[in-house]
Amino acid sequence: MNEIPKLVSVDDHVVEPPHVWERWLPAKFRDRGPKVVRRGIGAIDYVGTANYVEHFDDDSPTKVDCWVYEDLVYTHKRMVAAAGYPKEEQTLTPITYDDMRRGCYDPGARLADMDAAWVEASMCFPTFPRFCGQTFLEASDKELALACVRAYNDWMAEEWCGPTGGRLIPLGIVPLWDPWLAAQEVQRNAARGFPAVCFSELPFHLGLPTIHSGHWDPFFAACADTGTVVAMHIGSSSKMPAASPDAPPSVSATLAFGNAMSSLVDFLMSGVLVRYPALRLLYAESQIGWIPYALQRVDQVWEDNQGWAQTKHIPEPPSTYYFASVYGCFINDPHGLKSLDEIGVGNVTVETDYPHSDSTWPATKEVMTKLTADLPDDTVRRILRTNAAELLRLDLG
Amino acid sequence: MNEIPKLVSVDDHVVEPPHVWERWLPAKFRDRGPKVVRRGIGAIDYVGTANYVEHFDDDSPTKVDCWVYEDLVYTHKRMVAAAGYPKEEQTLTPITYDDMRRGCYDPGARLADMDAAWVEASMCFPTFPRFCGQTFLEASDKELALACVRAYNDWMAEEWCGPTGGRLIPLGIVPLWDPWLAAQEVQRNAARGFPAVCFSELPFHLGLPTIHSGHWDPFFAACADTGTVVAMHIGSSSKMPAASPDAPPSVSATLAFGNAMSSLVDFLMSGVLVRYPALRLLYAESQIGWIPYALQRVDQVWEDNQGWAQTKHIPEPPSTYYFASVYGCFINDPHGLKSLDEIGVGNVTVETDYPHSDSTWPATKEVMTKLTADLPDDTVRRILRTNAAELLRLDLG
Repeated sequence: MNEIPKLVSVDDHVVEPPHVWERWLPAKFRDRGPKVVRRGIGAIDYVGTANYVEHFDDDSPTKVDCWVYEDLVYTHKRMVAAAGYPKEEQTLTPITYDDMRRGCYDPGARLADMDAAWVEASMCFPTFPRFCGQTFLEASDKELALACVRAYNDWMAEEWCGPTGGRLIPLGIVPLWDPWLAAQEVQRNAARGFPAVCFSELPFHLGLPTIHSGHWDPFFAACADTGTVVAMHIGSSSKMPAASPDAPPSVSATLAFGNAMSSLVDFLMSGVLVRYPALRLLYAESQIGWIPYALQRVDQVWEDNQGWAQTKHIPEPPSTYYFASVYGCFINDPHGLKSLDEIGVGNVTVETDYPHSDSTWPATKEVMTKLTADLPDDTVRRILRTNAAELLRLDLG
Repeated sequence: MNEIPKLVSVDDHVVEPPHVWERWLPAKFRDRGPKVVRRGIGAIDYVGTANYVEHFDDDSPTKVDCWVYEDLVYTHKRMVAAAGYPKEEQTLTPITYDDMRRGCYDPGARLADMDAAWVEASMCFPTFPRFCGQTFLEASDKELALACVRAYNDWMAEEWCGPTGGRLIPLGIVPLWDPWLAAQEVQRNAARGFPAVCFSELPFHLGLPTIHSGHWDPFFAACADTGTVVAMHIGSSSKMPAASPDAPPSVSATLAFGNAMSSLVDFLMSGVLVRYPALRLLYAESQIGWIPYALQRVDQVWEDNQGWAQTKHIPEPPSTYYFASVYGCFINDPHGLKSLDEIGVGNVTVETDYPHSDSTWPATKEVMTKLTADLPDDTVRRILRTNAAELLRLDLG
């Protein structure tokens, strides 16, 4: 068996360092941008199974670092900076930057952690802005929020990715509240080499028009024109799939991929991929093992339910547009790899999900070697490296 | 290749004939029970993509048969009595009983239609009461509604199944608004040989407590004690999975299985199957090709997210309880049959979905012969016949 090639991971996470907006916002906004404050924290009261109320107590010896922005107080939790902790300690415990592995927020340390896991290049989703910039969508002052979006992208270009020789891949965010401004930001970022942009799997759940409405066409057109991949992370709709509200968090954790599935079906049935054949979609952290059934089912509905399901605007079986335009990625997905023929060898990429609790880090190389042991070398090379490199136009030499 | 065995279909549909409640309600309720009225119908205005307003016009030559009950007017549509129509004519067009194939509502004609499709035995879900009796849950007069539930079950026992020599399998409904009354109805039906009862995949969406609440324990205990299978049809939560509200109906039609998936994960993570090991669950019309990924993911979350996802009340990997207690069924699912090792040969049954638009009828035998062509004879026999026969305690000789 040959050694697996070095990985291109299309879904990791950056915990933004405290100085991002203080350094990159224009001077007139700087006082009002997001800032990190260290506070004492006392009891945490859990409400139901998944919500909680934090009680700050500045006399407490237990400290936490919080982002403070408008009325928002966002505390860092160990589960989103979990790298290096044993699974049973990857809890909701509030933490400071000192409690995180340095690779969470420092690009030099991140490169070393990537080396340890056999990862050559990595694309990172935001933490404080949330997976597609919902934090700024929800802000009151939209002039400030637009400046914050741009500052994030500037920091991403210059500080997070700039000095890494292409190993950290820039992934932009956009002002979600205006598709024309969003299109402008896509163009601004594409001009400096961003190959991808974050978007919401289901914008309706953010209070925004859907992809069926035509509202997003300026944004989709800008992405198609510039070759900017639309990257949608699970949770980028700020809502979990329908289940019971008093279910343990394990139910949402299991079902989160269901929103990616809903989003994929929405795109395949919408006609967006018919109208924008150059558009490319990437679903992140949703794995791939659910894709064979979803593709089988869209084609069955297109054929069997044609009398009532309104399918006439889709000229070919919907799976056709998936194979042409959509990419998935896997963390650890034996069923997905067993089903590559149905998913498409050309439609699959990999991720490590560093530093979250689903991550395979630091054992990624061992996990990937085992997962791909029965696959042909060429297939392994494509899914672990070259599909992503081609999609994101990386120059890896 | 051997001829496939005759099928036991665990999910078909009965269109209740007009006389059900007029004949089976106690005299004092009879005037107020559901009745069929034939009306003229004019324009149908579609509202958005999936909703519509019907304009009745008694001078119109186009007639429709409607159920009338309290404030509800429910018109029959061709798509739910679609057997015999070409796919492109399986539309939302309102119809009368005369426009339906007789097998939709007449047990003798149904047996002939089953013969034509190589089906030996069939279990049918309700139409006017909806998939788990939501119509009666939503009714104002609960004394009348309880009588209607019982009348339905009496008609099911005596008229629909009674004279068929076991070929039509009784499937009960319960008063969903009271778990103790529901338990009583389960016991009443079990005593006369009902092997299964309809339930909601996600009761929360019906405005009811969830399976996590303990509310349903009397019902689950009655089902476990009597060996009554809890049969959950897609749509029995009256709500489609989260997607865009202005999506074409093809999106909901594709994603409807997502509620079954949510329900399965809810059960596996709830501890209900730990507390009631004799309980058996059957998911209907949701097919099976999504199950491998769902099982893989519940076990990954149970292991990898243990620090925060609240999994301690589940002593074994959650898939353990699926293999012991849960059954799926397929209509036409190549990916599912390719993945039988992961789904469990013992956990799979078949359905024909007569007379709906997803049905393989009348070509069911040809479809099944082709779908199972690469499987061992013993496996084919189990998934097409004996698993269901054992689950439903059928005496097929």
